[in-house]
Amino acid sequence: MDLVLVVGTGLIGGSVGMGLRAAGAATVRGVDRSPEHLDRALELGAVDEISADLAQACEGADLAVVAVPVGQVVPTVERIASAAPRMIVTDVGSAKGPIVAGAEAVLGSFVGGHPMAGSEREGIEAARADLFEGALWMLTPTAHTDAGAFRKVNTLVQRLGARSLALDPAEHDRLVALVSHLPYAVATTLMELAGSQGDDRVLRAAAGSFRDVTRTAGSNPGIWKDILSANRGAVLGALDAFTERLSGFRDALAADDWDAVTHFIEHARDARRRLPLKGERGPADPFVVQVPIPDRAGVLAEITTSLGAHGVNIEDLWMEHSAAGGIVRIVVDGPDVATSAAKHLRELDYRVAVMRLEE
Amino acid sequence: MDLVLVVGTGLIGGSVGMGLRAAGAATVRGVDRSPEHLDRALELGAVDEISADLAQACEGADLAVVAVPVGQVVPTVERIASAAPRMIVTDVGSAKGPIVAGAEAVLGSFVGGHPMAGSEREGIEAARADLFEGALWMLTPTAHTDAGAFRKVNTLVQRLGARSLALDPAEHDRLVALVSHLPYAVATTLMELAGSQGDDRVLRAAAGSFRDVTRTAGSNPGIWKDILSANRGAVLGALDAFTERLSGFRDALAADDWDAVTHFIEHARDARRRLPLKGERGPADPFVVQVPIPDRAGVLAEITTSLGAHGVNIEDLWMEHSAAGGIVRIVVDGPDVATSAAKHLRELDYRVAVMRLEE
Repeated sequence: MDLVLVVGTGLIGGSVGMGLRAAGAATVRGVDRSPEHLDRALELGAVDEISADLAQACEGADLAVVAVPVGQVVPTVERIASAAPRMIVTDVGSAKGPIVAGAEAVLGSFVGGHPMAGSEREGIEAARADLFEGALWMLTPTAHTDAGAFRKVNTLVQRLGARSLALDPAEHDRLVALVSHLPYAVATTLMELAGSQGDDRVLRAAAGSFRDVTRTAGSNPGIWKDILSANRGAVLGALDAFTERLSGFRDALAADDWDAVTHFIEHARDARRRLPLKGERGPADPFVVQVPIPDRAGVLAEITTSLGAHGVNIEDLWMEHSAAGGIVRIVVDGPDVATSAAKHLRELDYRVAVMRLEE
Repeated sequence: MDLVLVVGTGLIGGSVGMGLRAAGAATVRGVDRSPEHLDRALELGAVDEISADLAQACEGADLAVVAVPVGQVVPTVERIASAAPRMIVTDVGSAKGPIVAGAEAVLGSFVGGHPMAGSEREGIEAARADLFEGALWMLTPTAHTDAGAFRKVNTLVQRLGARSLALDPAEHDRLVALVSHLPYAVATTLMELAGSQGDDRVLRAAAGSFRDVTRTAGSNPGIWKDILSANRGAVLGALDAFTERLSGFRDALAADDWDAVTHFIEHARDARRRLPLKGERGPADPFVVQVPIPDRAGVLAEITTSLGAHGVNIEDLWMEHSAAGGIVRIVVDGPDVATSAAKHLRELDYRVAVMRLEE
């Protein structure tokens, strides 16, 4: 069984440990700057063993999951790289561009990761084995990412019950700016505005929907400052796009242009109906998409992010090397997804075969 | 027992009926434009009896709760006023200025109301006897509101488990624009922006917090068009205040002014911690604040909205008339609230006595 090193045993790291242990998928070793948190992680069954020293903890580990605040990921990866330069390393940070670049600079290959799951609660006390069940877990391979490392991390994601989606780090950052960082900025501004009225009735009137909208405004300011800083460019872009649209809505309202107002709110409602439900699992019907690949850098990232761009979930992926190059085998759920994946890869001039996975 | 007429047996009207019946507080007669909805309300126990004709349904009723969409409140009140000009009438609309003015024009006295409770689901199927339990229910008395009518509506609110807060109709509108209509506009804009990317990954990445933030964007566009129309001025004001603050936040981020960013998000978090928890009930320790009042218009509104402005819940209120004027008795929860209420009323030059309520 793999020995997985979890660096940072807070909400996310603790839940990774609990989930892997619950699935019988790995032995988990925990490291944390705080001895109290580490002891508590052991008590709560988030880890099998603990270590106070990161360099020592790397010994014998197959894979490191760096689950520290965004601003500390690269320094942590640097320390891992010194102790174990060939370690497979992934992280869980909410912004990927600078982290992936910094980690690749010291490790060569790095598998950037970002589970879209969390809680407004923090720390090991809020950790749960099923935190990632049915959640989306984004992975950001690049031209430098080793295929075996990607597969290992992708398998870990599957074992935690999450669905992986591969995409380019910059694409990731633009996307989470829209669906996570912008909503945070907006929630925070709503809350700040309401709190600045000098009128407690405003807060008393803040019933259910206001609570829902502003939930993230209650989370840790330090964590959010780090995230906003790491993803500043994409967040500014998202803020500008949002402000432009809000201003269009305002102008329609001011002009009594009810056709425009109605069109806007109907469009939003239709989009909301397209939000996927959580809790999807798979693959129920595994198919293999098999692709012979040339021996050049960037092939894995090209294939996985192209599939991600077309909404194809990669359930599993492995790669075999031969003299002439290699073969990558990608597991997807169901014949339709396999056919769609094959079509997109053929458009990129790959030769593709599709077959049902025999267990 | 009172006979309460519920006009419009949807989510709110149905829940009012169920709540009153569960509390044994009234016999409930339902009226609705849709015979199917009305039959269903009877089946689900939201009403004791039904009537297809609003004018006939007024006969013998003590109080009418108008629970129709915002745009139909005034026409409905006009029909009630024709059939029963002395009926005590309240409504549940989310905007109060135009409704209260329109209703007073035909009825003289009208008790505007707005329960801060709801659901993204609609209709009688979503109705619940405990929908208002612990919720805030705003009442908007004016100089024309009859004290007996106010008391009757206030008692109904208490029987439904809600807490009433009296405030001026314009104040109400400004306040709900901030905590309800602005958040709706913001949620809708977030959803519209995410839906306009032509990239399904954006919607797939919209995990928990995005769902929370955009929940109201999924609700009925027709209802929201009505609300935005009825409260257009206050909503525009709230949008402008919001945009100004968001732009300040954006500029701080763009300028790498992390002190300003941190101050902003910490201020928001502090405000969110001041949001009251739902589920408060009362009065546990009822006190009476007794105020002799002159015989002039507007006294009730002045007293109740002044108490509301200082955060005083009116648990109950009644008024006795004498030759020289009258006495209003206000029940509040606990000696501290009573002392505070007395202080504020004395500042308005009322003579005030406070005593424990003997049941």
